[in-house]
Amino acid sequence: MNKPSNDRQFRPVAVPDVELGGFWGKWQDAVCNSTAETLLDRCVEAGMLKAIDVDQPSPGVVIPIQPWGGTTQMFWDSDLGKSIETIAYSLYRRPNPKLEARADEIIDMYEKLQDEDGYLNAWFQRVEPNRRWTNLRDHHELYCAGHLMEAAVAYYQATGKRKLLDIMCRYADYMIKIFGHGEGQISGYCGHEEVELALVKLARVTDEKKYLDLSKYFIDERGTEPHFFTAEASRDGRDVSEYHQKTYEYAQAHQPVRAQTKVVGHAVRAMYLYSGMADIATEYKDDSLTAALETLWDDLTTKQMYITGGIGPAASNEGFTDYFDLPNDTAYAETCASVGLVFWASRMLGRGPDRRYADIMEQALYNGALPGLSTDGKTFFYDNPLESAGKHHRWKWHHCPCCPPNIARLVTSIGSYMYAVSDNEIAVHLYGESTARLKLANGAEVELEQTTNYPWEGAVAFTTRLEKPAKFALSLRIPDWAEGATLSVNGEMLDLNANMRDGYIRIDREWAAGDRVALYLPLALRPQYANPKVRQDAGRVALMRGPLVYCVETTDNGEDLNAIVLPRELSTAETVVLKDLNDAVALDLKVEREETSNWGTALYRNAPAERQVATARFVPYHLWDNRAPGEMLVWVQSDR
Amino acid sequence: MNKPSNDRQFRPVAVPDVELGGFWGKWQDAVCNSTAETLLDRCVEAGMLKAIDVDQPSPGVVIPIQPWGGTTQMFWDSDLGKSIETIAYSLYRRPNPKLEARADEIIDMYEKLQDEDGYLNAWFQRVEPNRRWTNLRDHHELYCAGHLMEAAVAYYQATGKRKLLDIMCRYADYMIKIFGHGEGQISGYCGHEEVELALVKLARVTDEKKYLDLSKYFIDERGTEPHFFTAEASRDGRDVSEYHQKTYEYAQAHQPVRAQTKVVGHAVRAMYLYSGMADIATEYKDDSLTAALETLWDDLTTKQMYITGGIGPAASNEGFTDYFDLPNDTAYAETCASVGLVFWASRMLGRGPDRRYADIMEQALYNGALPGLSTDGKTFFYDNPLESAGKHHRWKWHHCPCCPPNIARLVTSIGSYMYAVSDNEIAVHLYGESTARLKLANGAEVELEQTTNYPWEGAVAFTTRLEKPAKFALSLRIPDWAEGATLSVNGEMLDLNANMRDGYIRIDREWAAGDRVALYLPLALRPQYANPKVRQDAGRVALMRGPLVYCVETTDNGEDLNAIVLPRELSTAETVVLKDLNDAVALDLKVEREETSNWGTALYRNAPAERQVATARFVPYHLWDNRAPGEMLVWVQSDR
Repeated sequence: MNKPSNDRQFRPVAVPDVELGGFWGKWQDAVCNSTAETLLDRCVEAGMLKAIDVDQPSPGVVIPIQPWGGTTQMFWDSDLGKSIETIAYSLYRRPNPKLEARADEIIDMYEKLQDEDGYLNAWFQRVEPNRRWTNLRDHHELYCAGHLMEAAVAYYQATGKRKLLDIMCRYADYMIKIFGHGEGQISGYCGHEEVELALVKLARVTDEKKYLDLSKYFIDERGTEPHFFTAEASRDGRDVSEYHQKTYEYAQAHQPVRAQTKVVGHAVRAMYLYSGMADIATEYKDDSLTAALETLWDDLTTKQMYITGGIGPAASNEGFTDYFDLPNDTAYAETCASVGLVFWASRMLGRGPDRRYADIMEQALYNGALPGLSTDGKTFFYDNPLESAGKHHRWKWHHCPCCPPNIARLVTSIGSYMYAVSDNEIAVHLYGESTARLKLANGAEVELEQTTNYPWEGAVAFTTRLEKPAKFALSLRIPDWAEGATLSVNGEMLDLNANMRDGYIRIDREWAAGDRVALYLPLALRPQYANPKVRQDAGRVALMRGPLVYCVETTDNGEDLNAIVLPRELSTAETVVLKDLNDAVALDLKVEREETSNWGTALYRNAPAERQVATARFVPYHLWDNRAPGEMLVWVQSDR
Repeated sequence: MNKPSNDRQFRPVAVPDVELGGFWGKWQDAVCNSTAETLLDRCVEAGMLKAIDVDQPSPGVVIPIQPWGGTTQMFWDSDLGKSIETIAYSLYRRPNPKLEARADEIIDMYEKLQDEDGYLNAWFQRVEPNRRWTNLRDHHELYCAGHLMEAAVAYYQATGKRKLLDIMCRYADYMIKIFGHGEGQISGYCGHEEVELALVKLARVTDEKKYLDLSKYFIDERGTEPHFFTAEASRDGRDVSEYHQKTYEYAQAHQPVRAQTKVVGHAVRAMYLYSGMADIATEYKDDSLTAALETLWDDLTTKQMYITGGIGPAASNEGFTDYFDLPNDTAYAETCASVGLVFWASRMLGRGPDRRYADIMEQALYNGALPGLSTDGKTFFYDNPLESAGKHHRWKWHHCPCCPPNIARLVTSIGSYMYAVSDNEIAVHLYGESTARLKLANGAEVELEQTTNYPWEGAVAFTTRLEKPAKFALSLRIPDWAEGATLSVNGEMLDLNANMRDGYIRIDREWAAGDRVALYLPLALRPQYANPKVRQDAGRVALMRGPLVYCVETTDNGEDLNAIVLPRELSTAETVVLKDLNDAVALDLKVEREETSNWGTALYRNAPAERQVATARFVPYHLWDNRAPGEMLVWVQSDR
């Protein structure tokens, strides 16, 4: 906790600076071809444009206030924001004038909607104009603002158009006036975190420290006493004892953030808060925030995380419960929560490469977030169980459509999670076929070509393109699972053990055009066992290969997947490339299967089922339910 | 299905004719000492007496109509009915003038409340007087009547007082007038079955066939087209498409009862319906009903029943889901549903002894119903999971207090489930220390003394007391699990295999005073495995001894019960009598335990946990949560 302060500052590269091919290129194509437009279509169908269009006399359909104190309509600005952000990223990859025009039209509507003072919120301007800033605890006002800010930054970077950016700067300037400890100011913060990390993006793109300061204010203020939510409820005539979520832990507002040691409450909120905290820790080199975050990181990843990087097992609070309580079939594990974990992990890398964070970022990305999108980009998972008896399938939409644009914007911006730069160092956190244009603070400019069929194969090659030789360090992550990894620079092998720091190999040298780094990460099949305190995984094993969690599905293996038993000594898996499933690598293994056909009619009997030798096909979990519907299982029975 | 018609008719003996000692005597004492009075106290606290007291100007607190279309207050008559029934049975065992006076007072109130036409229902007379018979689907009107009828019969048999019996006969006579296919009559039935079986009780005690006919009418009418619930909703201006339960399967009204083959919907409703059907099948020797019931019986017991005899896994419909879907930790398995299964099973014995029914009756009684009551008779389980992470504990009361009086009335009337008589045969379905005064239809009278420490020990001795020798058959159940059972009559061993019919040994002879039958049922420890289609029990084993399911609890075994692994070859269990737990026989077994202390901090790792040899103590499931709170587990990991 009391490590010497760390002066390093890494920032993710801008999304337009990385061009993806291979694995991620395919996913980005799915978003460009389908999801980006689908998002807007669905928003329009829901009535969201009517709601923000001041040229329409009425905001259209109004969803009434629900028992929790608000309605999903209160977050419509966020849905539009995330959709515009996705469109922006998709425009980098593929210009689409029609889609850009639709986004421009929405931005025009927001321009007209914005109040003279800078305030902007469809619900509180069009539906409940007298309720502005009366219930920050429940009503997502700053959350909506945050998503519009992220959209503004992305849209500006994609198109060079400043309109939405200017709108959101005006709004942020207004916030700076009304939030604070001064006379007549609101000494508060939003019940759903998001604006904190958005203000950091706004600050970075505008180079305005005042937005960082506002973000830091919200973070520092959170959970302090006298409690803002209590005072606010009292001013608003609400009875705090009737708070639907029962505890301020729900919004991580039960304690000042630096005193928090346990990851609690609503999972997406928690991830967004910690993301904002990590950004502020990086920007201000705030060791007290970093120390709190490290404690929370360990708490989450050693006691509360599914092997998929799914988090928040309970539907009731869309969040956390007890330590080691990780039910597989009822797992909530919202797509947004894993997206949020990717956000948080990437920001923990702001103070320097460390595979503790990058390994989990990758795990959550491939296995927690990515399952939220179908291969064709048209359907979505909201919750992500690790076991299904056959009834869990992707949605075309959701009454609370937060997840579809969240996974879509992550997929389309994935380049900025792969590479980060400091003044004299390039960190490669994730591997994937891509070309990155990188500019270091020391002035060096380099184009880095990454050639690989990762995550299906373990060979990764980097080739540099530079106008003139430059001195900088290239740091490459060696995942903790990559036992036997090798690395060569221009054909010369490096001793990984001697050069490893925090799980990264740092190659500090003068680089010239055409330098070649070859990394090999062995993708051995890895049986994974859970801490025996996870009662739901007792006697079970999950299979991983590289960063990917695998599962069995009915379409490959028939029914009664729980009758599959993996032997203690696994056979060598035969790998099979599935042409009809994104060229995924499937694994065929010798297993035993409990016989169900000759069991008899009794439900219970004195002897266990007989077993037969069989072959089971395991496919990457993120690709499940893309073919025929059926059962699915991650944790299979294990002989021990 | 097309077996020749069965002419046998067995009726349960009257509750006052059996005196219990031993195991059941202790439980009956708990009800007499605590539960009977507690039930009334809680009913009073809830405001139930004010609700029925016409001398009070207002019915007191009124619970508003809930989203499902009614309120729990609509069943208050049933809560009072079951409480009076419990009190009646408890008065057999131990006179209690004060309690009897309280019951008399309630009965007086009901007498005053009853309308001149015979109608009686606190809600629809005091709260919604204009809504009588407008929503039989949701409003439990006949259900309430049924419970008051059962109370009336019990109270009459216990005290000789006819007042409540006369009230309920008047009400039943009124029902006969208004239900039927005639002009102006209601061609319907209740959404919550119960009155069907209650009318049979009323018919048997009054010897009035008209009540049987009404019961048969309700059963025959159920699920026929045009559908009563649809017509009723239409008359009442309700939109059937908004039916909260979505399907008439919820109330087993989706098809005529004889066409039903799958046990569906609300579990308690299903059990009460089938109970009434079985009674009517017995009374009318109706083979078409019996055939339907046999199909439903197999459906329930081979595809949808927990090993505890718990049924109805889902909270959402308080009932059935898919075949083989039996989650342990979230099991609803309402106490009332297992009480209902005991009711149904006992009535399936109406057409002759058959251990297919009696074995399950015993299994559900000890392991599904009895857990609902604490050893001191003061606290209750509503839902009965087979696994708890430590947060499931008994209630002092419940907002829908159906279970406490249900298990209490079953415990206090258990004698009538043990013995049944036909014209020339006595069937002993259950074993337990008791004395039964039995009168056969052929005129024979016999007092049968059963001496045993069952279910803790397997020796059961019967001694006859007769004034003069008499010819009749004594049929004794040999449970399917009792491998190696022996039986002697006056010291002479019988060949069980040669004399077994439907799992009973029928000893047909002339009996004299002092004849002695000695039965020995070996109580071997029996590991039980579930059909591999039950995914939640895969790789797991449950232990039974005699009729009892066992479990492990934290108080004996520490935390992390899922780390216990039973070896494939079980050691001989050491039996230990627990003085502080109703003298229960506990089982100490050699097991292995996955080590949690040396696992390390990682949540997941490449190697499974190491194991240590340990001893685990198993206690009867029905006694769990009677000592220190903690985890509980029925299905433990099994080495295979």
